[in-house]
Amino acid sequence: MARLIRQEDNFSEWYNQVIRLADLIDDSDVRGCVILRPYGYAIWENIQKILDQKFKDVGIHNAYFPLFIPKSYFSREASHVSGFAKECAIVTHYRLKDSPDGVVVDGSATLDDEYIVRPTSETIIWSAFKKWIRSYRDVPLKINQWCNVCRWEMRTRPFLRTSEFLWQEGHTAHMTREEAYTQAMQMYNIYESFGRDHLALSFVRGCKTEAEKFAGAEKTFTLEALMKDGKALQCATAHLLGQNFAKSFEVQALTKDNTMQYVYGTSWGISTRIIGALVMTHGDSKGLILPPQIAPTQVVFIPIMKNDDCKDDIMTYINAIGQEVMSCGVRAVVDNREEKTAGFKYNEWEVKGVPLQIRIGLKDVASHSTEIARRDNGEKHNIPREQICGFVKEQLAIIQKDLYSQTLRFRQEHTYVVNNDNDFVERLKNKDGFVVYHYSPEQEKRIKDLTGATVRCQEMGPSGKVIDDSTAIYAQSY
Amino acid sequence: MARLIRQEDNFSEWYNQVIRLADLIDDSDVRGCVILRPYGYAIWENIQKILDQKFKDVGIHNAYFPLFIPKSYFSREASHVSGFAKECAIVTHYRLKDSPDGVVVDGSATLDDEYIVRPTSETIIWSAFKKWIRSYRDVPLKINQWCNVCRWEMRTRPFLRTSEFLWQEGHTAHMTREEAYTQAMQMYNIYESFGRDHLALSFVRGCKTEAEKFAGAEKTFTLEALMKDGKALQCATAHLLGQNFAKSFEVQALTKDNTMQYVYGTSWGISTRIIGALVMTHGDSKGLILPPQIAPTQVVFIPIMKNDDCKDDIMTYINAIGQEVMSCGVRAVVDNREEKTAGFKYNEWEVKGVPLQIRIGLKDVASHSTEIARRDNGEKHNIPREQICGFVKEQLAIIQKDLYSQTLRFRQEHTYVVNNDNDFVERLKNKDGFVVYHYSPEQEKRIKDLTGATVRCQEMGPSGKVIDDSTAIYAQSY
Repeated sequence: MARLIRQEDNFSEWYNQVIRLADLIDDSDVRGCVILRPYGYAIWENIQKILDQKFKDVGIHNAYFPLFIPKSYFSREASHVSGFAKECAIVTHYRLKDSPDGVVVDGSATLDDEYIVRPTSETIIWSAFKKWIRSYRDVPLKINQWCNVCRWEMRTRPFLRTSEFLWQEGHTAHMTREEAYTQAMQMYNIYESFGRDHLALSFVRGCKTEAEKFAGAEKTFTLEALMKDGKALQCATAHLLGQNFAKSFEVQALTKDNTMQYVYGTSWGISTRIIGALVMTHGDSKGLILPPQIAPTQVVFIPIMKNDDCKDDIMTYINAIGQEVMSCGVRAVVDNREEKTAGFKYNEWEVKGVPLQIRIGLKDVASHSTEIARRDNGEKHNIPREQICGFVKEQLAIIQKDLYSQTLRFRQEHTYVVNNDNDFVERLKNKDGFVVYHYSPEQEKRIKDLTGATVRCQEMGPSGKVIDDSTAIYAQSY
Repeated sequence: MARLIRQEDNFSEWYNQVIRLADLIDDSDVRGCVILRPYGYAIWENIQKILDQKFKDVGIHNAYFPLFIPKSYFSREASHVSGFAKECAIVTHYRLKDSPDGVVVDGSATLDDEYIVRPTSETIIWSAFKKWIRSYRDVPLKINQWCNVCRWEMRTRPFLRTSEFLWQEGHTAHMTREEAYTQAMQMYNIYESFGRDHLALSFVRGCKTEAEKFAGAEKTFTLEALMKDGKALQCATAHLLGQNFAKSFEVQALTKDNTMQYVYGTSWGISTRIIGALVMTHGDSKGLILPPQIAPTQVVFIPIMKNDDCKDDIMTYINAIGQEVMSCGVRAVVDNREEKTAGFKYNEWEVKGVPLQIRIGLKDVASHSTEIARRDNGEKHNIPREQICGFVKEQLAIIQKDLYSQTLRFRQEHTYVVNNDNDFVERLKNKDGFVVYHYSPEQEKRIKDLTGATVRCQEMGPSGKVIDDSTAIYAQSY
């Protein structure tokens, strides 16, 4: 196995290496697209399973809308199309034919209606809402879809920014702005608690500025996390669309007073990008560190065989304990590969960020005990066999808590309230973290030109109201 | 609610109406694409959940590969490209711009590499297998993905044949043909038992002819079901790819004897098409009939209110029983909409095919009983309240079994072994069902030209071997 570069030597290169070494992704020949390998996809499946249940619990229904969006739909909301115009993949033809040069696109099979490959589905979903919403009885209407979307970005990075990615996108319609606002905040709070409790991520809660909000939204609520290199990552957003899409798609509902009224909308999403946040928040120079709640494998059992004589004894012991731990509801794997050494396995599962390793040699069999090593801090414990289930579950809970505490502390320690322009510019140039300073649209533009940093958000209180309109949180970002 | 046409008057029109009336789908402005509405998508989610677990139980790992396939990949396997050439959607550009005519495709943003929107992923997955497979230790390699695929078909029908559809596609690689064969049969058997036990579908097990097999396969194993109108529907397939894709993509593995060898492949899939099979197998002139195992809602509670006085008593009673039934693990809904009459609700849930309706009026509250109506045969039972959970679970099991028995009997009764050419042609012209007759490639071509019917398969024994090479099962088909 190739050796991983040290995180402190080159964070960006460390990231590129660790996501490949840990088998999260592989490269493809498709521009800006990666393959999600089983280990990476399993993290996404865990994210899906948990969030999907939370959505269902608050009355969201899954559905599926076409991948292709007629170009004409896409153009209806002016700021929406201008926000996405440069990033669209476009289907213009539908047939191949043989030619002397090999297989080519059949020029005679041009589509009359050209289609955009969805970068997001507001337009096609609101064109359906127009059919489904006639009166106040048809709303609130709460739809979600899990799907792939495409954005033809010029500079791509696995998870963070790829031409195609997986996400969920929720879309709702309501009779009043207040109700839509409440819905957007409800979904936003679900993302926040999911991030905190399952991914051990700590977010700044904030509102995007006019310059940074979603193309077509009135307001964008964002959860911003801080990566270990001091750069911010937008992890999830919820948008209050107001009546923008309702007006573009003529979605009016009969009110209880027998008048017609445009409805109010929200949309909200989280994508595979969040896996990039996991990597850059918790990982270290030995590889990934996965929070137990989201780790596909929480515990790996590794046999230590000095010679072939002891093999049967060790494997019998290890399989029995493995079964026991799995039957307590822990996601455990027994690594019984014969062609690999114990040392190789320690290293490989460290790179993959499995929270606990249980290493068992002949002397553990003899003493009816186990050696348990924590991935996050390297702590080792020698535990009697009969205590193993309880200890493992306790340790997983402790690791989850510790990772969150560290993330929170890191963010707090790397948030700088500055009070003069010099410090402001320096902090941003140095990528020190979040920088709180005076906000104005002119300031926002000036600092972006000067340092490349953007306003991540303006901090909100629990109700979703910006606390102080004259300040904002700036940072370099992904 | 619009009235449904009678199934026997016009089956095709009945199908078109019932999938819309039952809220399974809605139309879209995208050519040949439909919207899967929440009720239709919930059926797909149940299918996914059950199959995904079955796949995981036999060591299949989920992953995700790019939607776009470089045109050059796609051309590598000759019969594969010719099989799909006419059905590809092709991405040629990546940007929009403003113009006097509105938003148009930016002609200057042509892609150097044109991309095919995947109609199936063998080519892109085998190009990854080339990197992942070096020696016998790397196989078997067993991958599955749940995704959307696109086939630009000229004539489309919701579920049965749409430009975009959802499916899973499994892809495996093995050191020997025997192992690949066993894998293909294992997945095939999973589809069959899933169809039988969960969807109450009864299949003919068979092998496709050379003319009908998958483009790029050595053999295609198919599960063919018979719809109520006497037409066949291919419900799932598993392909033995032999070394075809391994050779096209140069996937060789080191053997234990230290030589290099092309590996053997399989692929296998099931799609949202299966929902069409559910509709056309079980439905009747009142609407859908969903097998309890797959029904999103298994039981609906409907209050019967003569006047407002009794409302509270009835709703208290119904909510209590509803909770009780749900807590037994039954998927139940209490239909408490105030603006709809009980009659409207009976009808609506009948159209939606919910297996059991529990109707409760004031006299049921008084007598501590419930009226339970079966969707499939209209039977009604008056059951004391304390027996409700047991009775409901028992009835759901009985309905599931009854639906399968009917399907099996229908298929058997509509399978005709004919022994002269006249009967053969007549049966096929009349769409009577499956017709067993002499097979030869010439016969296959002749009957297709004459009647439009195709060979659905040649019947296989349990091991996957064709029982009699000189006969085949013919039918009109979807």
